[in-house]
Amino acid sequence: MTGTAALGRVPEKGYDHMETDFSKYSLVIGRFQPLHLGHMEVIRKCAEESDHLTIGIGSAQYSHYPENPFTAGERYLMIEESLRDEGISNFSIVPVEDLNRYSIWVAHVVSMCPPFTCVYSNNPFTRRLFSEAGFEIKASPLYSRDIYSGTEVRRRIVADEDWRSLVPHAVSEIIDKIDGVGRIKDINIKDTGI
Amino acid sequence: MTGTAALGRVPEKGYDHMETDFSKYSLVIGRFQPLHLGHMEVIRKCAEESDHLTIGIGSAQYSHYPENPFTAGERYLMIEESLRDEGISNFSIVPVEDLNRYSIWVAHVVSMCPPFTCVYSNNPFTRRLFSEAGFEIKASPLYSRDIYSGTEVRRRIVADEDWRSLVPHAVSEIIDKIDGVGRIKDINIKDTGI
Amino acid sequence: MTGTAALGRVPEKGYDHMETDFSKYSLVIGRFQPLHLGHMEVIRKCAEESDHLTIGIGSAQYSHYPENPFTAGERYLMIEESLRDEGISNFSIVPVEDLNRYSIWVAHVVSMCPPFTCVYSNNPFTRRLFSEAGFEIKASPLYSRDIYSGTEVRRRIVADEDWRSLVPHAVSEIIDKIDGVGRIKDINIKDTGI
Amino acid sequence: MTGTAALGRVPEKGYDHMETDFSKYSLVIGRFQPLHLGHMEVIRKCAEESDHLTIGIGSAQYSHYPENPFTAGERYLMIEESLRDEGISNFSIVPVEDLNRYSIWVAHVVSMCPPFTCVYSNNPFTRRLFSEAGFEIKASPLYSRDIYSGTEVRRRIVADEDWRSLVPHAVSEIIDKIDGVGRIKDINIKDTGI
Amino acid sequence: MTGTAALGRVPEKGYDHMETDFSKYSLVIGRFQPLHLGHMEVIRKCAEESDHLTIGIGSAQYSHYPENPFTAGERYLMIEESLRDEGISNFSIVPVEDLNRYSIWVAHVVSMCPPFTCVYSNNPFTRRLFSEAGFEIKASPLYSRDIYSGTEVRRRIVADEDWRSLVPHAVSEIIDKIDGVGRIKDINIKDTGI
Amino acid sequence: MTGTAALGRVPEKGYDHMETDFSKYSLVIGRFQPLHLGHMEVIRKCAEESDHLTIGIGSAQYSHYPENPFTAGERYLMIEESLRDEGISNFSIVPVEDLNRYSIWVAHVVSMCPPFTCVYSNNPFTRRLFSEAGFEIKASPLYSRDIYSGTEVRRRIVADEDWRSLVPHAVSEIIDKIDGVGRIKDINIKDTGI
Repeated sequence: MTGTAALGRVPEKGYDHMETDFSKYSLVIGRFQPLHLGHMEVIRKCAEESDHLTIGIGSAQYSHYPENPFTAGERYLMIEESLRDEGISNFSIVPVEDLNRYSIWVAHVVSMCPPFTCVYSNNPFTRRLFSEAGFEIKASPLYSRDIYSGTEVRRRIVADEDWRSLVPHAVSEIIDKIDGVGRIKDINIKDTGI
Repeated sequence: MTGTAALGRVPEKGYDHMETDFSKYSLVIGRFQPLHLGHMEVIRKCAEESDHLTIGIGSAQYSHYPENPFTAGERYLMIEESLRDEGISNFSIVPVEDLNRYSIWVAHVVSMCPPFTCVYSNNPFTRRLFSEAGFEIKASPLYSRDIYSGTEVRRRIVADEDWRSLVPHAVSEIIDKIDGVGRIKDINIKDTGI
Repeated sequence: MTGTAALGRVPEKGYDHMETDFSKYSLVIGRFQPLHLGHMEVIRKCAEESDHLTIGIGSAQYSHYPENPFTAGERYLMIEESLRDEGISNFSIVPVEDLNRYSIWVAHVVSMCPPFTCVYSNNPFTRRLFSEAGFEIKASPLYSRDIYSGTEVRRRIVADEDWRSLVPHAVSEIIDKIDGVGRIKDINIKDTGI
Repeated sequence: MTGTAALGRVPEKGYDHMETDFSKYSLVIGRFQPLHLGHMEVIRKCAEESDHLTIGIGSAQYSHYPENPFTAGERYLMIEESLRDEGISNFSIVPVEDLNRYSIWVAHVVSMCPPFTCVYSNNPFTRRLFSEAGFEIKASPLYSRDIYSGTEVRRRIVADEDWRSLVPHAVSEIIDKIDGVGRIKDINIKDTGI
Repeated sequence: MTGTAALGRVPEKGYDHMETDFSKYSLVIGRFQPLHLGHMEVIRKCAEESDHLTIGIGSAQYSHYPENPFTAGERYLMIEESLRDEGISNFSIVPVEDLNRYSIWVAHVVSMCPPFTCVYSNNPFTRRLFSEAGFEIKASPLYSRDIYSGTEVRRRIVADEDWRSLVPHAVSEIIDKIDGVGRIKDINIKDTGI
Repeated sequence: MTGTAALGRVPEKGYDHMETDFSKYSLVIGRFQPLHLGHMEVIRKCAEESDHLTIGIGSAQYSHYPENPFTAGERYLMIEESLRDEGISNFSIVPVEDLNRYSIWVAHVVSMCPPFTCVYSNNPFTRRLFSEAGFEIKASPLYSRDIYSGTEVRRRIVADEDWRSLVPHAVSEIIDKIDGVGRIKDINIKDTGI
């Protein structure tokens, strides 16, 4: 980009007095509905490669939906306890509300999170948004997405199949404490009467 | 800025395939409550120096307040007719709603406006926001701010003093058509009863 | 309607001192994702029949969605440049954000746009909303809707088929400049991993 | 729950000086698009069992959608007139806007409604939300949900089948007065052109 | 108004099939923080002159502010019980949230309330907004505004002076039940520490 | 409170299967504009008394205002680095946006934060809100509020007086890195021209 702020992107000129201490500060963002072992694989490797990793909890304002059963606070606890169990400590967790306006979403994320210069993502959409805003994008580590997915965990919970083997132990415990199984079953029943 | 997206600002890397046609595309933004001859002086000079000038109507969602009596649509008409009377044509007008969140406001403006690379402003706050986002800032032309100000125009309207000499002819006509004088007087009466 | 403001509509009594200069001021509203030759046909004829035509860019806050890939500012530029290429000049362009509340949407449009007394639309829903609010509705000119549609343009872009013949030249150029093809392809890839 | 405010729910300690006069104050909530005879059956029995019944009109901000054709004010009138025709008087009607954030929805309902201690619902989702917030939940009376449903009423209106036998007489009259049949037909026509 | 929808107002043409049953349906709107005897005087007379009176509770979403201590639900109860004590029954109560955008506020009120054709108000601002939208405006009955005002009631509560003589008995009872005195005192203490 | 959910508060009944592990999980909430040594005193003692302390960053969406100069992300970093320098680790940091609706604010905080059962505050307003929702309230530790206040830090920055002695070393460093001094000075200049 050569000096234009045109067409939805922000140009390159900045402050001269800015010293960069944040060259290995990274961001990874997900919905974590709930946190599963695939997420853990990604976070572990990103945290290893980074001086500091910010973990954004996306769609933070949503809960009690079939696709988004848990509150941001519940998901925060799941991540925090699972990473402590693994001995990882160079991370921050930040709930990030959806604005449902993608042209301002990156600026929103930036305003809510500690500094980062690099974004880990394999999602073409996330990569596109941060790339148009000028961030460095890295591929996030691969994992078996068919098995380790929030969709699959939620499906198994509704179907009374084994879901505990897909999530960290702390997640399983927290879901039990908050009657997460009951909640997911209730919110998946279609019923429009009063 | 050396490669960091840290701390509220967006970094410099962009697309290589972006050809810059917009090096003399500019933005000037104001509330225009109402458009006055000082605004006209600024717009005339900015339009002369630019290939294209976007005129942002700030606080677009507000009207019928003492500080913001006119709707964005009424202000749009005031600007459009006054510039046509002057023979200026290389401009776009864009109503821009306040989000009351400054960390995302620049991204919001960028998403709503045709491309621009330079922002005209003497306002330290506006300069700060666009500067932190990496835009080129130019001083806007000077004019007599004591006399030519929206505050003064509105004060004179309430006080039945001469206000027409402070605004373009088209503005005076439009205010008459919409009973703007009656509106400004009504909304300035303090009264909290029902 | 005989003197009632009941049931979602606004009644007829107004100010006596209102002189109507706006009897041939019209509105046409679309999403323009992107502007295509069918839109151009409509705008050309509406502009001919009107003293002044306001072109509302609907769903202005959305971009980077499969159905809404371009920002309001990008769409503004597409319209402005295409109409200039045709020599049309009696128009205003206004980005109009969706409020997702139809009972107040007409009042919102009115507040953001220069005055208009007539609305061009063939869409039964748009006609209904403006008609309930008391506006004059005119049929917009017909065009071949199977070929000239935003849906078809976006489909062809994803499928690497010819889409340039469906849009004005300026639109094709702008989409190239902003890597619109890349953006549309990226945001159409389904992927829910992190 | 033993003294914790943890995990999305609010704990038990309150003010000592609170005297409970509201032990038989109840809430029932629906969208009433439109009010039908099944709703009437529920409201009649809930009102009988309660000292006072608050009837919440859900999704209050929506109208002119295929699923939500009527404004909250139109629905308010339907309920009020139908209950008066039945001689029921121990009720309040409260339009309740959706916030699309379920974790705060119960607090929102509580803030908008007169006091209630019990919620009538057969909907597992509604029961879950109020139950997590600590409210007493009662099953609402049964009725024939296949025939008496808003979906069915709206379907019959579009299909020109008999719908009047499914709704109270007042509802039928109000729909006629506001041209509700015309509105529902118009907003159900798919058309994306301008 | 002669056939224009221009400049923030909506024009006169409506549906022919609309039969007016609502010629004596009225609206009065206030914040009722809290309901006092001056409000009661106004409501009593407006209800007498009207077939039906809708009482809008303005700023419905606000509570726990010094100027707005009570929730909409608490205020709803105050009004309902006080009017029942007086034997008035031809009224509806509707909480109306502020949108902080006056150009769409009337349309918002209309969408939330049962039909009305006339608005009672002495407030120049309220009169202006409904008048620009074409409603009939009537002066609301006079009362002693120095003594009977929400500001005065709240001031006396903070100062431990007699406030009970300014409000209906039911209001005094409800304020006691909800520890309204304690709440108003707490929220009036200036303190910015943590 | 004896079994009522009436009047703005939520009642006591909960799930039986809830095991309380969170009896010493606490919340303290502030704006931290910026974090100063008084805040540090409070956080240090609260963290000592608690198994886990959630630190809520209030007014998270605001920045670049005279009263709220720093983004939530900048404030997050200030807190995180200052607590690490002190060797405190049993805390979570959560940005919490203002909703400007106090009746739902506690539910909003609960949804965004890890579990807590006790709230530390000396602020009568905060105590009132959490107390009405049934939380245990503890007095937060005392400190010299005249000197250690965000207002005083910001005043000294504008006045070029010593402010560094009022804040932790990490805060001083971060403010330098982001040109926080320049930002605070710019946003405090009153100027309404364009």
